[in-house]
Amino acid sequence: MAVPVWSVDPRTGKQREQVAVEAGAAAVDAAVRAAATALPALADRGARARLLRGAAGLLEESAAEVIATADAETALGVPRLTGELARTAFQLRAFADIVDEGAFLDVIIDHPDPAAVPIPRPDLRRWKIPLGVVAVYAASNFPLAFSVPGGDTASALAAGCPVVVKAHPDHPATSALCADLLRRAAVAAGLPADTVVLVHGFEAGVELVKHPLVAAAGFTGSIPGGRALFDAAAARPRPIPFYGELGSLNPVVVTEAAAAERAEQIGAGLAGSFTLGSGQFCTKPGLVLTPAGADGDRLVAALTEAAGAAGPGVLLDPRMRENFLKGAAARAALPGVTAPVVPGEAGGGGAAGGDGVAVRPGYVVAEAGALAEPGAYDLLLEECFGPLTVVVRYRDAAELAAVLDRLPGNLTATAHLGVREAAEGGGAAAELLARLTGLAGRVLIDGWPTGVAVAAAQHHGGPYPATTSTSTSVGGTAIERWLRPVAYQDTPPALLPAELRDGNPAGVPRRVDGAWEGRGRG
Amino acid sequence: MAVPVWSVDPRTGKQREQVAVEAGAAAVDAAVRAAATALPALADRGARARLLRGAAGLLEESAAEVIATADAETALGVPRLTGELARTAFQLRAFADIVDEGAFLDVIIDHPDPAAVPIPRPDLRRWKIPLGVVAVYAASNFPLAFSVPGGDTASALAAGCPVVVKAHPDHPATSALCADLLRRAAVAAGLPADTVVLVHGFEAGVELVKHPLVAAAGFTGSIPGGRALFDAAAARPRPIPFYGELGSLNPVVVTEAAAAERAEQIGAGLAGSFTLGSGQFCTKPGLVLTPAGADGDRLVAALTEAAGAAGPGVLLDPRMRENFLKGAAARAALPGVTAPVVPGEAGGGGAAGGDGVAVRPGYVVAEAGALAEPGAYDLLLEECFGPLTVVVRYRDAAELAAVLDRLPGNLTATAHLGVREAAEGGGAAAELLARLTGLAGRVLIDGWPTGVAVAAAQHHGGPYPATTSTSTSVGGTAIERWLRPVAYQDTPPALLPAELRDGNPAGVPRRVDGAWEGRGRG
Repeated sequence: MAVPVWSVDPRTGKQREQVAVEAGAAAVDAAVRAAATALPALADRGARARLLRGAAGLLEESAAEVIATADAETALGVPRLTGELARTAFQLRAFADIVDEGAFLDVIIDHPDPAAVPIPRPDLRRWKIPLGVVAVYAASNFPLAFSVPGGDTASALAAGCPVVVKAHPDHPATSALCADLLRRAAVAAGLPADTVVLVHGFEAGVELVKHPLVAAAGFTGSIPGGRALFDAAAARPRPIPFYGELGSLNPVVVTEAAAAERAEQIGAGLAGSFTLGSGQFCTKPGLVLTPAGADGDRLVAALTEAAGAAGPGVLLDPRMRENFLKGAAARAALPGVTAPVVPGEAGGGGAAGGDGVAVRPGYVVAEAGALAEPGAYDLLLEECFGPLTVVVRYRDAAELAAVLDRLPGNLTATAHLGVREAAEGGGAAAELLARLTGLAGRVLIDGWPTGVAVAAAQHHGGPYPATTSTSTSVGGTAIERWLRPVAYQDTPPALLPAELRDGNPAGVPRRVDGAWEGRGRG
Repeated sequence: MAVPVWSVDPRTGKQREQVAVEAGAAAVDAAVRAAATALPALADRGARARLLRGAAGLLEESAAEVIATADAETALGVPRLTGELARTAFQLRAFADIVDEGAFLDVIIDHPDPAAVPIPRPDLRRWKIPLGVVAVYAASNFPLAFSVPGGDTASALAAGCPVVVKAHPDHPATSALCADLLRRAAVAAGLPADTVVLVHGFEAGVELVKHPLVAAAGFTGSIPGGRALFDAAAARPRPIPFYGELGSLNPVVVTEAAAAERAEQIGAGLAGSFTLGSGQFCTKPGLVLTPAGADGDRLVAALTEAAGAAGPGVLLDPRMRENFLKGAAARAALPGVTAPVVPGEAGGGGAAGGDGVAVRPGYVVAEAGALAEPGAYDLLLEECFGPLTVVVRYRDAAELAAVLDRLPGNLTATAHLGVREAAEGGGAAAELLARLTGLAGRVLIDGWPTGVAVAAAQHHGGPYPATTSTSTSVGGTAIERWLRPVAYQDTPPALLPAELRDGNPAGVPRRVDGAWEGRGRG
């Protein structure tokens, strides 16, 4: 019996249209087998680059329809979705450039050395090849940039891997639209349409990670969901890499000096960051360590003013709304914890949210001492998805260190420093930076973690549970997830790919007998 | 109650000396905590390079004692162990060079771009940092090169990670000697002795992978043992990467043309490769696809002559001997399978093996048709550790392909081609190469997989169960296993490591705004 997949408007709770039916085991098997047939054609790097650029172009051509559909399904708003579409197209083109350049192939060539010790060295030529069919699990909170046409898909296609995307139930219609665009781009690039295949449904996601022909998976979502899939990937007869981005508290430390110098600016900046997109960013600052005392009080006052002025917003779906309201209430109810701006239901009449479905941003304040040891206050060290942050007041360096030592892994960690601390380095600031480095994959000074630039040097990942591996899901090196090295020994030129032949006919950056080749100024 | 750890002579079965006692949970905890204290000091790349070079020097200075001890414990013989020690010292120095150069830090710098679309780009500087304490599980068959001072340890130290080695019970005295050398080298390099800590015992190995402060593990050994540890690593509250090299059949395909051109040479070469080190190499060719017909008959005749002339050898321990004898007998007993040279007990008087503990190399022959479908003959597709190989006669390309399609992942796959096939490429040879590439991490033409050169372009790994990840345990890129990237955003120069500062004061190869820097000819 086919289970219908509905597109739902979170502003009204009403079903918009039936998009598809959920895929059972047989449909998932068919999807994976179809995608697997595209693998040989994807060996053509030129076709991959055309596919990625073509997809970016089609996405821009269809922007009006895609954005309207995504807004109707997610309530994220047209301005935000317009930016997300531009980011997604930029990302697709960035991976096309990476495919063209070929540095990601990591070519290393060692010519034979009969005089090598302890034994003669044969001719060895190593590069990286695609892993096979990649399963991508779309995120709720980015219907484009971390979903069907997002970073996981773009990097997997760039690597030469066909993709089966499991759509997120919060935006099935957007997913179907985008999958159609990608499939059209594949055909236009001379590749099979099944280079990208879309499936819907919870069971489909479970089946996908277990399918023998699936070689790797990318996931953005919750800790329980991601961990269950990670466990399934590890428990397979043939385990596969599972690149999950699960959860992150994104701690922020405001030093005494920073609070003394610019408490108001930091308080207002924090309000802007934790309420952005209704707090539905994986990089939302969820724990802010702020000095006790007068300067910290000024910061809190500024935060109260700015957060109190932030408008209500509609969350992605009723389950998230419910979890947010429960989570906010439980945190505010802890003894000694105060809520200067009470997060909760927006009530009727909020500009963004008709019919009382909107929520109001807020924040709570706790003492650092409460977090020094495991106990009931550990709830404050768990991510609460939505527009809520936790301010923790610390009295001295020891209290600050004690709280930081209790944190799990994070995508980001931020320090707001005094001007002299930043300029001089060393001392307490250096110690703080070392501690934050141990906690996260991206460390920021005097900034806010929301907003993840698509750049070669980006790293969007961190110690568990931020990610389940050491990889990134944003930036150029995200392509590394979908490749494995192969070395050819004493293989005649006629049987080698151009990238591995003497003279470098493919013109890719390589390392040959220790020297760098084809790596001039870019 | 302390369980003693004995060094045993496999040639006599007699206990040589008590080396240590097995480590329980408390001793493992103490070992890991001790190693963890060395982490900060290892941030000094210069000290790491000194440690690695110093260890190589001490190993060479102590060569006589180390080799004599290893030979007494493993029966691998002085010539082989002399070569292995040279290889191990070479490997340590190769990683010192890698540490000095700094390319492994993968530095990528993107300067800020306020005009970037869709949003302004901040200053981002990415490099890689050590993961933390690494657990290394020593291999039975390489008491030096894949054990205490071996590739896993060398690459982890090069990455800046302290190491706790779990000794292999087949060579505890060699392990203790080598751990002592490494600890002395650490102190001489200005590092804590506990940069390397040794533990013994099965339970110690289980505790080690579960310890909260262990951040990654390297393993070389059997499929059941490695998979159990892999599962434990994945099941931790905070999962850690487990880099296991488990098992490999190392298929070899001899084409019709190759057999026609040089059947005798290939048969003799195969005998040399599968009997090398008494067949106790993870790269032993364990399945050899040979044409049916007269040319294949000539190959088999040559193999029979050469393998029949190979002397007996003593395996590493009684359990391996028993498994080998059982495995060889079970394969030879399959209906239709013949054993032109019967593997088995050497009987009394073998030159290398007194007291009847030696075994005789041998091989069996089966028809490809028997392997086309799952069934009793699947035993022939499992690795049999020791001096045995399986020759499979195929009648045509379809039979060859059917067998290859049934193989699990391998460390290596080899093709012996005719001169024209190799020179012209394309056609059946190219198809064969593509198929072998799908099966393995190293593909060889006209060679033998035993002997794994330590080189930048080496890849010693492959699809599961060859390895549990896409990484290598031999060659320069083995260092990548023990690192994770961190990106610094808008971080003032005074707080950045030299490697990430403008002007490149550390002189490491980097990518800056897309251009390669410090990557002149090596």
